[in-house]
Amino acid sequence: MQTPWENRYAHRTQRMGSSVIRELLKFTERPDVISFAGGLPAPDVFPVEEFAEACQRVMKNQGAQALQYGTTEGYLPLREMIVRHTASFGLEVTPENILITSGSQQALDLLGRILINRGDRILVESPTYLGALQAWNAYGAEYVAVPFDENGMITDALENALRTGPKFIYVLPNFQNPTGVTLSLERRYKLIELADRFGVPIIEDDPYGQLRYEGEHLPSVTVLDGRYRDNCNTVYRGNVIYLSTFSKTLAPGIRLAWVVAPPEVIRKLIMAKQAADLNTAVFNQMVAYEVSRGGFLNRHILLIRKVYKERRDVMLASLDAYFPPGVDWTHPEGGLFLWATLPEDIDAAEALKIAVERKVAFVPGESFHPNGGGKNTLRLNFSFASEENIQKGIYRMAEVFKEMIAVNQKN
Amino acid sequence: MQTPWENRYAHRTQRMGSSVIRELLKFTERPDVISFAGGLPAPDVFPVEEFAEACQRVMKNQGAQALQYGTTEGYLPLREMIVRHTASFGLEVTPENILITSGSQQALDLLGRILINRGDRILVESPTYLGALQAWNAYGAEYVAVPFDENGMITDALENALRTGPKFIYVLPNFQNPTGVTLSLERRYKLIELADRFGVPIIEDDPYGQLRYEGEHLPSVTVLDGRYRDNCNTVYRGNVIYLSTFSKTLAPGIRLAWVVAPPEVIRKLIMAKQAADLNTAVFNQMVAYEVSRGGFLNRHILLIRKVYKERRDVMLASLDAYFPPGVDWTHPEGGLFLWATLPEDIDAAEALKIAVERKVAFVPGESFHPNGGGKNTLRLNFSFASEENIQKGIYRMAEVFKEMIAVNQKN
Repeated sequence: MQTPWENRYAHRTQRMGSSVIRELLKFTERPDVISFAGGLPAPDVFPVEEFAEACQRVMKNQGAQALQYGTTEGYLPLREMIVRHTASFGLEVTPENILITSGSQQALDLLGRILINRGDRILVESPTYLGALQAWNAYGAEYVAVPFDENGMITDALENALRTGPKFIYVLPNFQNPTGVTLSLERRYKLIELADRFGVPIIEDDPYGQLRYEGEHLPSVTVLDGRYRDNCNTVYRGNVIYLSTFSKTLAPGIRLAWVVAPPEVIRKLIMAKQAADLNTAVFNQMVAYEVSRGGFLNRHILLIRKVYKERRDVMLASLDAYFPPGVDWTHPEGGLFLWATLPEDIDAAEALKIAVERKVAFVPGESFHPNGGGKNTLRLNFSFASEENIQKGIYRMAEVFKEMIAVNQKN
Repeated sequence: MQTPWENRYAHRTQRMGSSVIRELLKFTERPDVISFAGGLPAPDVFPVEEFAEACQRVMKNQGAQALQYGTTEGYLPLREMIVRHTASFGLEVTPENILITSGSQQALDLLGRILINRGDRILVESPTYLGALQAWNAYGAEYVAVPFDENGMITDALENALRTGPKFIYVLPNFQNPTGVTLSLERRYKLIELADRFGVPIIEDDPYGQLRYEGEHLPSVTVLDGRYRDNCNTVYRGNVIYLSTFSKTLAPGIRLAWVVAPPEVIRKLIMAKQAADLNTAVFNQMVAYEVSRGGFLNRHILLIRKVYKERRDVMLASLDAYFPPGVDWTHPEGGLFLWATLPEDIDAAEALKIAVERKVAFVPGESFHPNGGGKNTLRLNFSFASEENIQKGIYRMAEVFKEMIAVNQKN
């Protein structure tokens, strides 16, 4: 049916692709498909009972407030809790530094809205988080891609990239989505030093920082930026905007995340959020606060770490056992994902088509590359599937890759 | 503190004013101020107990699903419920015509994102809903303003406005925010006829349609558009995009609204929403569905109508009793707002400054005018304050206006 809307779309819709990841999520709804495709937390560790109790307390004691419109910046007790959380990592901020958003995706969108003019260059890791590219494509961003190895963004390549005059640097230092790789301490300092020298600010996206399964916690880029000039400085300097979320520690279904930024940036973000959705649901903010307080969130994170570490270990062992020679993968110290690299002549998107017939799904790596490439790479999520399904699914994938490699060798 | 973000804001931030309404909401938090400023529903009619029970059922039966990521288009049973609701007004749609959004504000933002290029003209009523102007300013919209009287948009002025080639027409036919005025049936047909003749589609924003306190229900522009060519046609034609919300019937704190549009527009909106916030909280959608089903929502709307009608009547009676000669106001047949016009030499923004000192607040009307004007107008909300406070607040306002009029007559 022809409608009068069809020839009226804005130019920016041309860069809107439906997310490959979101389309693939449809496979996870089929119970016979083992999916490593989504970025879904394990539903079996969701604190359902604690949520039920928190809902009751909120409705009983603050029902009318929970169901009313709220302020755009967010529920003050929740912002104060985030202030204490941030302080526990050695950084002093105030509630005026905090904006609550409807998931981190909204934080990325609002930052794009207030910062990006059409044609602005953004310096990103390659590969990088697909959701950031999707958010910023809408504002006409171009990308300067810095290559990546097992220690994260290669800071030796950063200086040349900074000469292109990027508006800001976007970095995911901990267990990066999609690769699972962590930016080394040395490179964090190098990043801060170069950003400072070129006067380019940083956006640090840290959804997984608390989900470390081995090795030492590394201070965030935001914290290190404060220490860069003054070893004792714990006051937030404002050069780095920091993003984190409750999606991976509490639950994604409540859509709650936050931004730490200088007050004047927060004010601009508030104006952008007013136009985008007025405010994040007060109900959800109150329930999340009730669930988290009294130390529950920190105790719950210990459980998540235990479950996800076991699943990561099973996936790594399965990869070792089943994947054919010529396929490499990362060894993430935390987070939800690892990254595999196939032989150069194997196309991961082609492999996915066969894999889906064999009831297993993953995300081909190309779409995570801002300027193309990486056709032989793929992302695997290890948080969602059970240990048994991880073994089965990796076996199925291995069979697909073996067959594709054998066919290529014959030709 | 100077930060490197300060000279990096996007051009579009220049058109982002902090919402006058949102700033004024701060006054409503002071218990001694009587506020007619916000658009807040009455918290005393929120179905708090029903929400508490629905939360328990959702957490008990679907806890893991409620806390997980969901599809961008929204929770299917809720979309199916909206399909039945739409059918009850004589319009056949399918779930593929429905997108759930995080409040109507997000629907306006996403429509702007997919439809508006910088410089595009949008045909609006003057005055019109401030939230739409805020959402669309971010995308560089310009406005063609059609004047307004007690029967809504003056359709005799529409033909000239349509010659300017607007991308779409935006109309709030029922108890419009800010004026409370309803577009007459005759003008609804005239609007549809002219839109059809010029090939310009319509966005109909209808948050208050079910909150009618007197007079006959008028079919929506969307329904009438289907009847325009064929009297028996009840199938959705797609020329009109229809917006509505649970904010005014259930509660605004859950941030749930919906769009009815042709499937191809819904697909574009889904892509835009993926980039904006991935999906609306599944938890909220399930709870809203649980609260609404089984006829509760329709029963609850009867209670809301009763309470708001009483408050409207008290406000109208207070205006009659206290407001000085030379001040006029509308007589809304439903909704949450009425609109007052002061003598031409009285500035409502100046009056507000004095009113706030006297502990009463309202919204000056100028910001609702897309291209300026209306300095002597103001919006009054009658849903939030108690009947006693409505009388007191209108008395306080009347005193302010009397004094200002007296001073002007002396000069």
